[in-house]
Amino acid sequence: MTHAGIDCEWDAARLAAWSQPRLARVEAALSRWVGVEAPVLLGDAMRYAVLDGGKRLRPLLVLAASEAVGGNEDAALRAACAAELIHAYSLVHDDLPCMDNDVLRRGKPTVHVQYGEADALLAGDALQALAFELLTPEGAGIAPAVQARLCRLLARAAGSEGMAGGQAIDLASVGQALDEASLRQMHRLKTGALLQGSVEMGAACAEQVPAEALAALRDYGAAMGLAFQVVDDILDVTADSETLGKTAGKDAASDKPTYVSLLGLQGAQAEAVQLLREALAALDRCPLPETGALRALARMVVERDR
Amino acid sequence: MTHAGIDCEWDAARLAAWSQPRLARVEAALSRWVGVEAPVLLGDAMRYAVLDGGKRLRPLLVLAASEAVGGNEDAALRAACAAELIHAYSLVHDDLPCMDNDVLRRGKPTVHVQYGEADALLAGDALQALAFELLTPEGAGIAPAVQARLCRLLARAAGSEGMAGGQAIDLASVGQALDEASLRQMHRLKTGALLQGSVEMGAACAEQVPAEALAALRDYGAAMGLAFQVVDDILDVTADSETLGKTAGKDAASDKPTYVSLLGLQGAQAEAVQLLREALAALDRCPLPETGALRALARMVVERDR
Repeated sequence: MTHAGIDCEWDAARLAAWSQPRLARVEAALSRWVGVEAPVLLGDAMRYAVLDGGKRLRPLLVLAASEAVGGNEDAALRAACAAELIHAYSLVHDDLPCMDNDVLRRGKPTVHVQYGEADALLAGDALQALAFELLTPEGAGIAPAVQARLCRLLARAAGSEGMAGGQAIDLASVGQALDEASLRQMHRLKTGALLQGSVEMGAACAEQVPAEALAALRDYGAAMGLAFQVVDDILDVTADSETLGKTAGKDAASDKPTYVSLLGLQGAQAEAVQLLREALAALDRCPLPETGALRALARMVVERDR
Repeated sequence: MTHAGIDCEWDAARLAAWSQPRLARVEAALSRWVGVEAPVLLGDAMRYAVLDGGKRLRPLLVLAASEAVGGNEDAALRAACAAELIHAYSLVHDDLPCMDNDVLRRGKPTVHVQYGEADALLAGDALQALAFELLTPEGAGIAPAVQARLCRLLARAAGSEGMAGGQAIDLASVGQALDEASLRQMHRLKTGALLQGSVEMGAACAEQVPAEALAALRDYGAAMGLAFQVVDDILDVTADSETLGKTAGKDAASDKPTYVSLLGLQGAQAEAVQLLREALAALDRCPLPETGALRALARMVVERDR
């Protein structure tokens, strides 16, 4: 994907160097927190769903935003994992036969193929609950106001006016001709809400953040979140299943409206670059010194090949 | 069911007089909060799942416990609704074909029969998220510490070490011979955790509660919660589908271990009465003046016929 003229300060190597230790912390925390005390089969299914080498984009967004505002590190790690758990549960439920009926995810059999539909359903449900449990540790050094705000942001991002609502619109839109505004609204909820929510959760890890910084981070999150989905639509057409780790070409096959079906491949690519510019422009308005990781993550979202 | 010699102070009329205005508040709040801003079909499914004349036992337990400790009224109403949303979502998912495959609930077609499996799945997911959103209102007069504690209690009660975990054990136990300890553990999680959690959430609506009162309320909740499930097992055998509003005789038909299959009908009835005594004895140890509603609710749990 072209991004000529877009300067993100950090090159890929610098982003990798920043990401690597943070990804290691997130993986270790997820491994410590997910499914360990659960009944055996349920715990196995939860861990299978989560500990599988996802890109961990949402955790990285939480951590980058928290570092930008000087947030509480424990709160940020918990929020990073909580956002990932919501994402992971949504994939488990999305893959079920009554939804997308997908058998392949990140190159492995989906959870219901491996553990049966009932345990997949329960594992998803339990992962959502665990996300909120992680955000509200007893006696930890996280201010209750931060805990409550993180729960509020995550619940809104996940619920009927966020991710779940977007999935419902997506379901209802199969075979429909959506205009760009409707498609944008669907994607803002379905994928954008949790990505934007991840940025906002990171920003909520500090007790005091200037209002204009919060507003800029929200705008960044909205543009970057929508860019993610535009690129998803592009990859569904241009990538093969092996690279994606999931079934390619599904949207077209299931007659779902996408940015590519609406704008064509080139139009969708131009839209992704435009959204990247908007995300970076929002950070230009942000009165915080450390936004390099957020910039580099937005570029990664648009340049990714899976 | 016999409860000879058990004095609960309040008679049925007094419990009804206490319950009626509180049930009206809960119904009005649920109607105001559930599915209103959601995409149309999803919102309809959410409302169908919740606004359907359930017994509202969990909300009443939250409100009774909150009144016993002098809790914040807005917090208690939100916690009451949140507990009911978790209960409602669990029924929606439980009824799905991949779980109990039930078509009748409270005398109506189940959510997936009415709205399709995919929307039922999403409605359940969105109801869980909404529960946590209700607990964390922005700018309301509820202390952040109370909000965070309510989220923590609800997440634990709902998750893999609570309700979802109990359902997973239940799934795995079909056709198995469980001993009483295992059956008790399964039921403590599957039904008991959220009932006990409702009592604890009510108690958490006050900022300061004496530790021995909290401990007594926890013990009350544990005994009452288990009693509820013992009575459920009894009603599955003794009641007809019309009275229950759901399919009777399902446990026996699906070869699930129950208190009746383990202890016989009379043994299960004796166990229910014994648990009621334990619940009331816990309140005798509770240094709070106003426990009449909690006592009467425990008796109602054991005496109910549906």
